Amino acid sequence: MSQAVRRGPGRRPGTADTRAEILAAARAEFAANGFDGTTIRGVARVADVDPALIHHYFSTKHKLFIEAVGFPIDPTEVLPGLIAGAPPDAVERLLRYMFSVWEDPQGRERVLAMVKSAVTTEQVAGMLRDYVLAQVIVPMLVEAGLVKGDRAEAERRVGFALSQVLGMVVGRYVIRIESLAEADPEELIAEVAPTLRRYLSE
Amino acid sequence: MSQAVRRGPGRRPGTADTRAEILAAARAEFAANGFDGTTIRGVARVADVDPALIHHYFSTKHKLFIEAVGFPIDPTEVLPGLIAGAPPDAVERLLRYMFSVWEDPQGRERVLAMVKSAVTTEQVAGMLRDYVLAQVIVPMLVEAGLVKGDRAEAERRVGFALSQVLGMVVGRYVIRIESLAEADPEELIAEVAPTLRRYLSE
Repeated sequence: MSQAVRRGPGRRPGTADTRAEILAAARAEFAANGFDGTTIRGVARVADVDPALIHHYFSTKHKLFIEAVGFPIDPTEVLPGLIAGAPPDAVERLLRYMFSVWEDPQGRERVLAMVKSAVTTEQVAGMLRDYVLAQVIVPMLVEAGLVKGDRAEAERRVGFALSQVLGMVVGRYVIRIESLAEADPEELIAEVAPTLRRYLSE
Repeated sequence: MSQAVRRGPGRRPGTADTRAEILAAARAEFAANGFDGTTIRGVARVADVDPALIHHYFSTKHKLFIEAVGFPIDPTEVLPGLIAGAPPDAVERLLRYMFSVWEDPQGRERVLAMVKSAVTTEQVAGMLRDYVLAQVIVPMLVEAGLVKGDRAEAERRVGFALSQVLGMVVGRYVIRIESLAEADPEELIAEVAPTLRRYLSE
């Protein structure tokens, strides 16, 4: 609290640097306290900025997280629309959407940057693990009726599906295994969709 | 050739440092020229040592490669015995063997170091891609009758299988997705084996 007193007129104004510092502070806070244990107020304290500035830049804690972890898209904006009503080709739709992000140069750059930091820094791995999986991906797939079982079983099933998705990203874009790197996305989707379907719901 | 003349009495003797320098030279040569285009003589020239010293340390080009890329085991020593005669549980045997390496602290450390360098340095990714896949894994699986199709189809099928294996390593040991990280290997094998079987031979 003494820190809170110290702030006030001393707080730095918003600049491009400030934005980057907010993101660094957010990464540290999310990694240390998890998503639920992190507050915008707490991030503001670490970054030594006014909480209103964080709201101004990122609007919500969720958006702040998405930016801090380097997610190329906000999955909650796009995915529910793709899988609403659990159409029979929901898995293909999800994969097609993921490939559209990965095939876009900017999207790919962000995904690869995220994978590299997840592989090299435990902080990012932990953020992905705790939040993306437990708080976003699993509930979204459960709600859409795409994954079978109670919460524990759903997490187990989604874990397997994610292992295949992760392996596709690493195999095609990072190690660039020839047969994966040179294939048309539709060919890959046709092979991988049955795997994901089995993991999620069979 | 002028370089070859320069060597001779000036060549450094074998020390622990020399071994590391040979490995660094080998990585550079394998990455630049591929496995087939690399010779022990060429590595010796880059490392400025006598080729006999490389033979002494690593015996063959193959073993030199295995050490240079950081492979935790030499797959050609172990795998053929596991899958000879293509027993119906060959995929389970392969997976069980891989997990035994990954679950061993030293083995895991080497696998993770290799994954990290493959993700962060194109050199290692290229070595894994060209050699392990095309020259070791695919021929071994084809010879054991574990993978269907001609050479191109076999490479394609093995590529998918590797994507699942890679994703399991990254998901369980790197990002440590809870449901994967805490499961018993046998549980994971039971889920993943049908996926690999489908990719390889259905």
